[in-house]
Amino acid sequence: MKIAVLGMGTVGTGVVKVLNTNKEKIQSLIGGDVTITHVFAKNVDKARDVDLSDIEITDDINDIYNADIDAAVEVMGGIDHTYEIILQLLNKGVHVVTANKDLLAERIDDLTAAANENNVHLNYEAAVAGGVPIIRTIENSLNANQISEVMGILNGTTNYILTKMTVDGWSYDDALEDAKEKGYAEADPTNDVEGIDALRKIVLLSRLSFNKKVDIKDVPSTGISNVDATDIQLAKDLGYIMKLVGIGKYDDSISASVEPIFFKADHQLASVNYEKNAVYVNGNAVGETMYYGPGAGSLETASAVVSDLIHVLTHPARGNFQPDEEAVIENKAVEYQYYLRFDDTEEEVKKALVGKDIGHKLSTASGAVVAVTEKLNENQLEDVLEGLNAKAQYPVIGDE
Amino acid sequence: MKIAVLGMGTVGTGVVKVLNTNKEKIQSLIGGDVTITHVFAKNVDKARDVDLSDIEITDDINDIYNADIDAAVEVMGGIDHTYEIILQLLNKGVHVVTANKDLLAERIDDLTAAANENNVHLNYEAAVAGGVPIIRTIENSLNANQISEVMGILNGTTNYILTKMTVDGWSYDDALEDAKEKGYAEADPTNDVEGIDALRKIVLLSRLSFNKKVDIKDVPSTGISNVDATDIQLAKDLGYIMKLVGIGKYDDSISASVEPIFFKADHQLASVNYEKNAVYVNGNAVGETMYYGPGAGSLETASAVVSDLIHVLTHPARGNFQPDEEAVIENKAVEYQYYLRFDDTEEEVKKALVGKDIGHKLSTASGAVVAVTEKLNENQLEDVLEGLNAKAQYPVIGDE
Repeated sequence: MKIAVLGMGTVGTGVVKVLNTNKEKIQSLIGGDVTITHVFAKNVDKARDVDLSDIEITDDINDIYNADIDAAVEVMGGIDHTYEIILQLLNKGVHVVTANKDLLAERIDDLTAAANENNVHLNYEAAVAGGVPIIRTIENSLNANQISEVMGILNGTTNYILTKMTVDGWSYDDALEDAKEKGYAEADPTNDVEGIDALRKIVLLSRLSFNKKVDIKDVPSTGISNVDATDIQLAKDLGYIMKLVGIGKYDDSISASVEPIFFKADHQLASVNYEKNAVYVNGNAVGETMYYGPGAGSLETASAVVSDLIHVLTHPARGNFQPDEEAVIENKAVEYQYYLRFDDTEEEVKKALVGKDIGHKLSTASGAVVAVTEKLNENQLEDVLEGLNAKAQYPVIGDE
Repeated sequence: MKIAVLGMGTVGTGVVKVLNTNKEKIQSLIGGDVTITHVFAKNVDKARDVDLSDIEITDDINDIYNADIDAAVEVMGGIDHTYEIILQLLNKGVHVVTANKDLLAERIDDLTAAANENNVHLNYEAAVAGGVPIIRTIENSLNANQISEVMGILNGTTNYILTKMTVDGWSYDDALEDAKEKGYAEADPTNDVEGIDALRKIVLLSRLSFNKKVDIKDVPSTGISNVDATDIQLAKDLGYIMKLVGIGKYDDSISASVEPIFFKADHQLASVNYEKNAVYVNGNAVGETMYYGPGAGSLETASAVVSDLIHVLTHPARGNFQPDEEAVIENKAVEYQYYLRFDDTEEEVKKALVGKDIGHKLSTASGAVVAVTEKLNENQLEDVLEGLNAKAQYPVIGDE
């Protein structure tokens, strides 16, 4: 089997290493050799820490289009230009394995349509939660279920920052700086800390779990750049841990969002720390399940890419998953408990909440007035906050 | 597609319910109806809480052999008799989905050989960790890895008991009684509490993870019936949580066992509580991953059975996983830290450990003398214990 690898950065070199290191096992699974015949890279002559001798390295995409390959691995990133490349390859009957969540979150339905027309695979296990096997798990192992909820810690950078703030009591700025030094955050961390990366992944997970096309523009996301360390510590004392999560729910309608949420400390997601990712899936037969592991990394992500590669090279294409209908995303009816910190006196808060008949627990430890309410929808929350000065408000999960 | 269900107990009725409740989704995945045409049950006339009208219910296995079916679901349990039945079905070209770990742990290689000869599927996702998708995950999603370790909380009954002893401070007897009342433990709990059920599952996981035939007689198992609540509480104060785990490791050789182990509280397995199961897998590319969910239950287990059923009805058989070589199980070289509780004085213990140059932490809280050692293999441990009166000894994981 001959393949091309498009992009020779962190994940691309990881793919080469995994194919080399585990060569014998992969050979026996595929029933033959997998040979990288072509690499597409911007910088052809760059020194890399993998051996690419005997491989044609090119910066001309036509060399890839003209190559005699069974499958292409796209790990170069980018959206519009990369879309055209993948589309061309699918149209040429080449299976495509991609880790590109930025592109897929915008265009997966178009690419899937092209793949299905050409009867080839389009696999993307590595695009969500890195090395954690979640795409094929939902598609093939939880498929006897109607899934009612999919929820994940989908971004290692923000989980690292929040863990540092929670466990070690660091400020947001110090934790971000540390994440940059450790290579978990990029120089411009916007996509991570503003929740955009997690948004792309929850769009893909919701689409797959609920069998609907999901327009990324319909899903609101809030990041962690405005999180105050005060709230993390106050909530920790009350037994809650903040995580930035993507959530999709399906009841009569679909809701989806990315936002910081406080989990009760004994919730499985609460103990997913530092750069790790995890996805929690609730199905109507299996109930609650969770999948935990590395959300990024060279070999870690390559583990998912190469498992996709083995799949596309050993299974006949039988139609990639493709929803027919568009999802209508409607978050107003979703009910959460809420953590609320007020700039009012205990008496004012108590009076207001009692007056509005809102079940709650009040805490005034450390001088701050904090309430954790019963479950409220968006309108009810607005009503609760009216006339009070809330300095912070976060949903709470797991406190029933 | 026509199927037979063999056994109409907890899991069998769950399978009927899942096929009914999620009928439309399953139809669309299979591209047609799945119809249960036959049920094999000892008691044909028994009242059941599922509708079996239009299904031929029989206590004569020949009716199943003579039926025109595509697949059979075996959820009746039993070993020798059930082996013959499954073998006959495979030889007749019928795909088999089974949840029967008791049988598989003894005979999976024989049954797989028969399935492969007849070019049919033998799937068993539900046999390990109930609803948690772990078999197909290891086989299809972690297959780019060499797996070095597979470790799991594989028995909900013992995990429930240990959780009650740890979290609520209960005695073993009280916790067992409670587990029986809640339906987590059987009247005769031997297979669960002595680690036999977990043993069967770690045999299946080790075989799959390390690509070797594993003889269940080669794998030692220790249960929890001799665990003293004292040790659970002493260790808890030191930050360790006891779990009964099946462990398989593959380095130069293979080691495997079932035993109670203390995990550092921040280990992912430490927070898997009550009747839940979880499997931790370490691969040379992906690193540490974990899979969490329900280890038993009617619909929960049926989730895995029906996903297998969808698989066998939609994928051509292409050879079930079948290792060639026998594993040589060798546990002597495995190194663990150890929790040791002594009936000696602090001075005696300290003197002995220092004299033998064994790194350790000593604790004398609550009057008990407890040491947590550096990593030791079996011989070194024996050497440490010589001349001292150890009342308890357990491996410790996660304290590096």
